[in-house]
Amino acid sequence: MAIKVGIAGYGNLGRGVEKAVSFAPDMHLKGVFTRRNPEDVKTETGVPVYAMDDLDSMKDKIDVLILCGGSATDLPVQTPVLAGSFNVVDSFDTHKNIPDHFEKVDQAAKKAGKTGVISVGWDPGLFSLLRLIDESVLPEGETYTFWGKGVSQGHSDAVRRVKGVKDAKQYTIPVQEAIDKVRAGEQPELSTREKHTRECFVVPEEGADLERIEKEIKEMPNYFDEYDTTVRFISKEELDRDHKGLPHGGFVLRSGNTGDNHHLIEYKLELDSNPEFTASVLTAAARACARMNGEGMTGAKTIFDIPPAYYSVKSGEALRKELL
Amino acid sequence: MAIKVGIAGYGNLGRGVEKAVSFAPDMHLKGVFTRRNPEDVKTETGVPVYAMDDLDSMKDKIDVLILCGGSATDLPVQTPVLAGSFNVVDSFDTHKNIPDHFEKVDQAAKKAGKTGVISVGWDPGLFSLLRLIDESVLPEGETYTFWGKGVSQGHSDAVRRVKGVKDAKQYTIPVQEAIDKVRAGEQPELSTREKHTRECFVVPEEGADLERIEKEIKEMPNYFDEYDTTVRFISKEELDRDHKGLPHGGFVLRSGNTGDNHHLIEYKLELDSNPEFTASVLTAAARACARMNGEGMTGAKTIFDIPPAYYSVKSGEALRKELL
Repeated sequence: MAIKVGIAGYGNLGRGVEKAVSFAPDMHLKGVFTRRNPEDVKTETGVPVYAMDDLDSMKDKIDVLILCGGSATDLPVQTPVLAGSFNVVDSFDTHKNIPDHFEKVDQAAKKAGKTGVISVGWDPGLFSLLRLIDESVLPEGETYTFWGKGVSQGHSDAVRRVKGVKDAKQYTIPVQEAIDKVRAGEQPELSTREKHTRECFVVPEEGADLERIEKEIKEMPNYFDEYDTTVRFISKEELDRDHKGLPHGGFVLRSGNTGDNHHLIEYKLELDSNPEFTASVLTAAARACARMNGEGMTGAKTIFDIPPAYYSVKSGEALRKELL
Repeated sequence: MAIKVGIAGYGNLGRGVEKAVSFAPDMHLKGVFTRRNPEDVKTETGVPVYAMDDLDSMKDKIDVLILCGGSATDLPVQTPVLAGSFNVVDSFDTHKNIPDHFEKVDQAAKKAGKTGVISVGWDPGLFSLLRLIDESVLPEGETYTFWGKGVSQGHSDAVRRVKGVKDAKQYTIPVQEAIDKVRAGEQPELSTREKHTRECFVVPEEGADLERIEKEIKEMPNYFDEYDTTVRFISKEELDRDHKGLPHGGFVLRSGNTGDNHHLIEYKLELDSNPEFTASVLTAAARACARMNGEGMTGAKTIFDIPPAYYSVKSGEALRKELL
């Protein structure tokens, strides 16, 4: 019996989930739920679109709901509420608020006998899993996470908010020299500035003060002031032609030792589409979520709590035979 | 309360576990069990040595027993028998016999209310975990496993059995060109010969027929006949000086796509000591084994069944705060 999936929120991530579910032979997409007027939303695969408010009446028709809203304002509210009626999966990534988010989802889900998998994707998500396994296996050592090269949507948005900026894209770039040091087993202490640089492609409004824009970006607290940032002014045509994708990726490295012997563990992602890959992880986690709920594992869960076999469409026997 | 650990079998792997347990603040090594005369065995850390037969009387003194024997003859017998009295962890790696081994351990462990984690290490083990997650997240694509550069103990043993060979070490080497093709997203079909080469450092007996030895190695069925093999004759002094370590490692690569977008997942290990790293994985799995048993999860388990948090000494709260 196929796992019946709903998608709540239909932006880049929601469209990615729609695609990922279409690759899953054991999942069936029941519908997309939106806060927009459903008649204005057209899905890629023709799956029906409902108003978010229609969710109430579909509690029995959906095994797991994949929440595709943003971490800033959507998920902190939606996930705890919807976990009171559905098995849910989200990609909540505001790091400092994860413990609080976990508690809220845990309470709601446990009360309702539901399962809520939070903070799934690649970071938080797969990278977190690697960090945990790396330090559990090699307790003596250091873990390093590098992001990029890739587009940071939060940083791109921040640049777009600068006065005189018409459009912009920001790339986060890991410092090759820092990665090389870690790979060489040096276990360096690396400052924020030593790990990543930032590159902004900015379309200015006509007549804007470019010097002021550049200065304002480079000095922006939290976003850019701790980094070496390059600002490049380009035309709207160039931006649309050369920077339309949302590639991303990164590394988790563990440099550790067992006494005199050194060991290096490296995990690397190179993603053409950040939202589509994140959606793929969410979809595998949705399978796990539905199964865990079926076996009575309720409450909030993270990637740390999920037995890996639950991600796979294959049986335990097949997994042991083919992949172990 | 510390997890009380026993080590059954005290070769390279057993010594590695002894070291790994010493890095674990929540584990206490109760003893080493050997088939040799206990008085002839001296442990690195001074932990007591017992005869294997003494295990019977120590059922209540050990929370988890780490089996450090070989997959050829030790583990197929030991693991199912000992799973009838202990929580056990092994590194059974005879791939085609894993389903049978699993069944036997599962029956014995379930009957006794024990937990038996089998086939833990890096392959089978961490590499298996990555293969499972990779294909679950990116169902459209191909997974590639490369081993090396590293010493294959099975192949070294096979070379040593050739007449006229005094000593030998065999390195498995991944073909860089093949890895590059996979990294480039080509999803190539690769034959055995195209993936790895083999290099043998051989110390011949005095007066041995070198040409015959080289031919016999290169044509050895199952071990070398499907590979491009290089044989280098060296002195015993050179072998002991330049080839005394047991380094190993390898790659798991997944080249996949979500429609038009391509994604690459790469996991790489570079290990100075294969037995010490394998022992480190076994030790983390022993922690998981003891905990799972404490929560009533009995029977045979593999890395596919273990919730990752169980490997870590940290609490769920700490993991979510520090690593998610």
